[in-house]
Amino acid sequence: MSKPAEWSVEVSKQLYGLEHSIRGEYLTIDETGALVLKIGDESVRIIDLMKKYGFETAYIRFLPAIKSTMKKVFETFKTLSQIHGYTGKFQPVFPMKVNPIPLVIDAIWRYGEEFNWGFNSGSIGELRLLHRYLDKGSRLLIYDGVVSDNVLKLLMDFKKAGWHVIVDVESEHDLQVLSKYGEINVGIRVKPFYKPGGKWSHSAGLEGKFGLTINTLLKLIKEYKWLNERAILIHIHGGSQIYELKHIAAIFDEARILFNDLRSIGFENISIIDTGGGMAYPYHDSRKGTPESPNYTIVDYLNLLIRKFNDVHPHPTLVFEGGRYIVASHRIVVAKVVDVRPYSTEYKPFETGNGERLIGIPESLEGIKKILQYTRDIQSKIKGKTLTLAERERVEDIITHYREEIIVKLAEIIRSNPSSVENIINDPLLYKILTSPSRRFIVNLSLFADIPDSVLVNQYFQVTPIQKLNEKPDVLAVLGDLTCDSMGELREFISDVEIETSVDSWFNRMDFRISHLPKKYLKLGGIPLHLPGKDEDYYLAFLDTGAYQDPLAMKHNLIYGAPEIVIDINGSGKPVIKVLKHGRKSYL
Amino acid sequence: MSKPAEWSVEVSKQLYGLEHSIRGEYLTIDETGALVLKIGDESVRIIDLMKKYGFETAYIRFLPAIKSTMKKVFETFKTLSQIHGYTGKFQPVFPMKVNPIPLVIDAIWRYGEEFNWGFNSGSIGELRLLHRYLDKGSRLLIYDGVVSDNVLKLLMDFKKAGWHVIVDVESEHDLQVLSKYGEINVGIRVKPFYKPGGKWSHSAGLEGKFGLTINTLLKLIKEYKWLNERAILIHIHGGSQIYELKHIAAIFDEARILFNDLRSIGFENISIIDTGGGMAYPYHDSRKGTPESPNYTIVDYLNLLIRKFNDVHPHPTLVFEGGRYIVASHRIVVAKVVDVRPYSTEYKPFETGNGERLIGIPESLEGIKKILQYTRDIQSKIKGKTLTLAERERVEDIITHYREEIIVKLAEIIRSNPSSVENIINDPLLYKILTSPSRRFIVNLSLFADIPDSVLVNQYFQVTPIQKLNEKPDVLAVLGDLTCDSMGELREFISDVEIETSVDSWFNRMDFRISHLPKKYLKLGGIPLHLPGKDEDYYLAFLDTGAYQDPLAMKHNLIYGAPEIVIDINGSGKPVIKVLKHGRKSYL
Repeated sequence: MSKPAEWSVEVSKQLYGLEHSIRGEYLTIDETGALVLKIGDESVRIIDLMKKYGFETAYIRFLPAIKSTMKKVFETFKTLSQIHGYTGKFQPVFPMKVNPIPLVIDAIWRYGEEFNWGFNSGSIGELRLLHRYLDKGSRLLIYDGVVSDNVLKLLMDFKKAGWHVIVDVESEHDLQVLSKYGEINVGIRVKPFYKPGGKWSHSAGLEGKFGLTINTLLKLIKEYKWLNERAILIHIHGGSQIYELKHIAAIFDEARILFNDLRSIGFENISIIDTGGGMAYPYHDSRKGTPESPNYTIVDYLNLLIRKFNDVHPHPTLVFEGGRYIVASHRIVVAKVVDVRPYSTEYKPFETGNGERLIGIPESLEGIKKILQYTRDIQSKIKGKTLTLAERERVEDIITHYREEIIVKLAEIIRSNPSSVENIINDPLLYKILTSPSRRFIVNLSLFADIPDSVLVNQYFQVTPIQKLNEKPDVLAVLGDLTCDSMGELREFISDVEIETSVDSWFNRMDFRISHLPKKYLKLGGIPLHLPGKDEDYYLAFLDTGAYQDPLAMKHNLIYGAPEIVIDINGSGKPVIKVLKHGRKSYL
Repeated sequence: MSKPAEWSVEVSKQLYGLEHSIRGEYLTIDETGALVLKIGDESVRIIDLMKKYGFETAYIRFLPAIKSTMKKVFETFKTLSQIHGYTGKFQPVFPMKVNPIPLVIDAIWRYGEEFNWGFNSGSIGELRLLHRYLDKGSRLLIYDGVVSDNVLKLLMDFKKAGWHVIVDVESEHDLQVLSKYGEINVGIRVKPFYKPGGKWSHSAGLEGKFGLTINTLLKLIKEYKWLNERAILIHIHGGSQIYELKHIAAIFDEARILFNDLRSIGFENISIIDTGGGMAYPYHDSRKGTPESPNYTIVDYLNLLIRKFNDVHPHPTLVFEGGRYIVASHRIVVAKVVDVRPYSTEYKPFETGNGERLIGIPESLEGIKKILQYTRDIQSKIKGKTLTLAERERVEDIITHYREEIIVKLAEIIRSNPSSVENIINDPLLYKILTSPSRRFIVNLSLFADIPDSVLVNQYFQVTPIQKLNEKPDVLAVLGDLTCDSMGELREFISDVEIETSVDSWFNRMDFRISHLPKKYLKLGGIPLHLPGKDEDYYLAFLDTGAYQDPLAMKHNLIYGAPEIVIDINGSGKPVIKVLKHGRKSYL
């Protein structure tokens, strides 16, 4: 057995999720421990960008990431279809709701030309935005929002300009409106019977928001005879971020049966299958089958798609909607740490004055747990009583003293016998204290403006320092944002390091909490970070914020509008950097 | 005993929350069953406003509601302080984060003049907005956000212009920055020890985001000697929407001890107590002690505040932050229903063709429950299997058939023996089916843009039709918004009718679900609504959307930007109506 490794940039790469199937292609750590963007043939240190423009908060938009994911999807399908002998067309579309800002739509338009990338739109606002490309080419446009005459008028513009327009129907009202627009092809959107569960499970099942039940569909088929001729697509969406492939398979199965059965009752023009936007983006790329970490890759997904429809004849055109996959990685939020505070109480070695004696920390785990339990009981026992200042100081001191001393003791035990760690972390109370935060870092950002899904659906975003990545972290820190809102905090960090590291590297330098354990998938109560030195500028990056975070941005406390550094690559592989200032260099 | 009442506008007033301590002052129902705004001496039907301007979605801002709540708070305190002989000052401030749009800040400024209403700000953006009032007067300005030199420079502008500026400190970093600005008074923000629980419980306790622990404070007091002289305020915030008065009392108790103890150790300049913004707004006004319905009124709150500090000498100045209370009621979202869909499967009487026989609905509740359980079991038994179109139709038919027939049967049982209702609703399965939705109404709005807190923190907002309020509802409906997001749905409705109504009026006209039961506090699975007739314009109002919903608005699917109808009253009591169009009359 080789000697376990000390801290290195390799450990940091794993700890901070940089060995990643998507962002790993263009993010890495250089020899100085700085996070760098690989732009064509060049590398740029992100901290240099921040300092160059004097930004304390900024969005870095790396547009080549969009091109790269589009290409990967397209070529993966091409290869797999050759392997399987699948002769149906591949038709990717970008669901505009995932990021309808002009910059992103423009990137999809430009990069999408060679792949004939289409669009999926769900609102009149999105159609208006897309309208500027009306005469610049013609793509597939699938509309699956609520319809109205205003919507149809816009869609007719696209149709007349040569676009291929399909409107999903999911209610009798939709059919009534569409009766008036005979030239428009329709898609039939059906409620999936199968409910995968997860954050967006309301999408699916008979009570889902979207689509027709079969019994309503069969009734409408009788009443709207034109449906038979105009229907060319079926659409079935099982929810967002479906993280287990078996759930994806169930939705594909439903789509296949629907396709076959509808064709067999006379819907012979149906030739396109849209299985919706369920493909999960790996916000953490460890294949665990958790909301942040799907248990499949793009290859698995597309392979399954082709296999499920390979025995259907004629081979249908397959629509790919994976909008998160295409744009999530293109935007990085970078923000400076502006204050470091003790997380709960400031630790100070206990002064055993006035005759009082504190018992020492015992050696046995049972003894340690008893004391730990005691520090929790104090708080609940006191609940309801009102303490004087002196009493409250005393209680705070006792709680902090014991907890910090216990952490030191546990670290000692593990250092002297590394194999004891298994036993210790299997105990929930001991695990919790060893992975508890010791600091609150105040960061120059607003979760509500910059990563709204972290408050909206508790979405996990990878956080990483952009400097000192060659050094062991000092502390576990909760991140507080600038808003006056208690929801404006990030606490959770997933640690999943495969390298066999030395026991010394498991512990943070200052607070003795655990940052990782070799080959263990851990959820920590804080982010492993370095304590910034006096006058040191210490920045954090929040990765994969390119899907949904732009349109969902809130203006809580009027904290919003970060400047943007937009990066593209020109024809000769050189970086082209544009800066969009929205009037502010900092939220503070 | 008098005869139980048939449906009337009085029943609607209770069902739709219009007998309300705040909004009830200016919202009522006229004899035609329309929701009307009482503006000074006049009444305006909301549906007339919508039709006059041709809006399908609009915000109605009723500014006099802000003036009215300010006055109520001020005068309640005045009366109570006379009763208790409290001689300390009352100092209301408006926490700008609650609604920092210029129109609201301007209303607070104008109406606040006679009450000397101050401001609480937490960001540089809010300070910049307030800056336009710099020379128009001088008010108290409490800053409790993260500090920086940029923030302090702006605050110094206010100070120089004669404003009374206080900056809360909650970390050593804050003290370091403030050391450079000796003229600025400070407030000491302390973490409350007490955790009330509830949606914003992260605000409180030793691990709360805000404030100092006592042991950190006592350490800083030793190091920053100037604190002693410059500290004039203590601030302790126990969380938002604290819905039980006993929790409020615990926070007040902590504040009192802190005040007394700090003064006793030499902080003699501390004379102002800020107990934060915990006062709950009654989104539903039934005093149940639930997140939407606090168990106390403004009178209870202010009475408690005065009583808790009445034995403190000298009587401190008491800061009142209740921002939700001041502005929540001023904004009403009105939106048209654009589509009505069956909620799950369309009901059609079962065709017992091909020899198959369905068993009838039994008379006994036990028998009914068995069948109900069977309809649930079908779904779970099938889970995992893939059904053909015909099989799935059959399953949907069976489920709907039994559920609808059971509802009819239960209604029959209750009608023939009204006292049986108690027994029936005490059974969770039977209660659920009797209060289940039968329709999905698609409404011309986006929850993400118009009532973001409904998706963000599951905030309850009162929904009411604005017409037909003299008619019994037809159905229970889930409300779907226009976004392509499954979270864009409202399902819950609180029914709390005190009138002794007839058994006939308990049931909806079309789907036989229960809309209310006399003297019962019920949570329904849908909103009791009328089925719009063909070509009938049917609108819904979402009440109390004036706090937080403006700054938290999201642009999901690019659906946002409703036009606004701003209503004020001129000197002679006449309505002044201004319309702000943001380019659209409808989201559709």
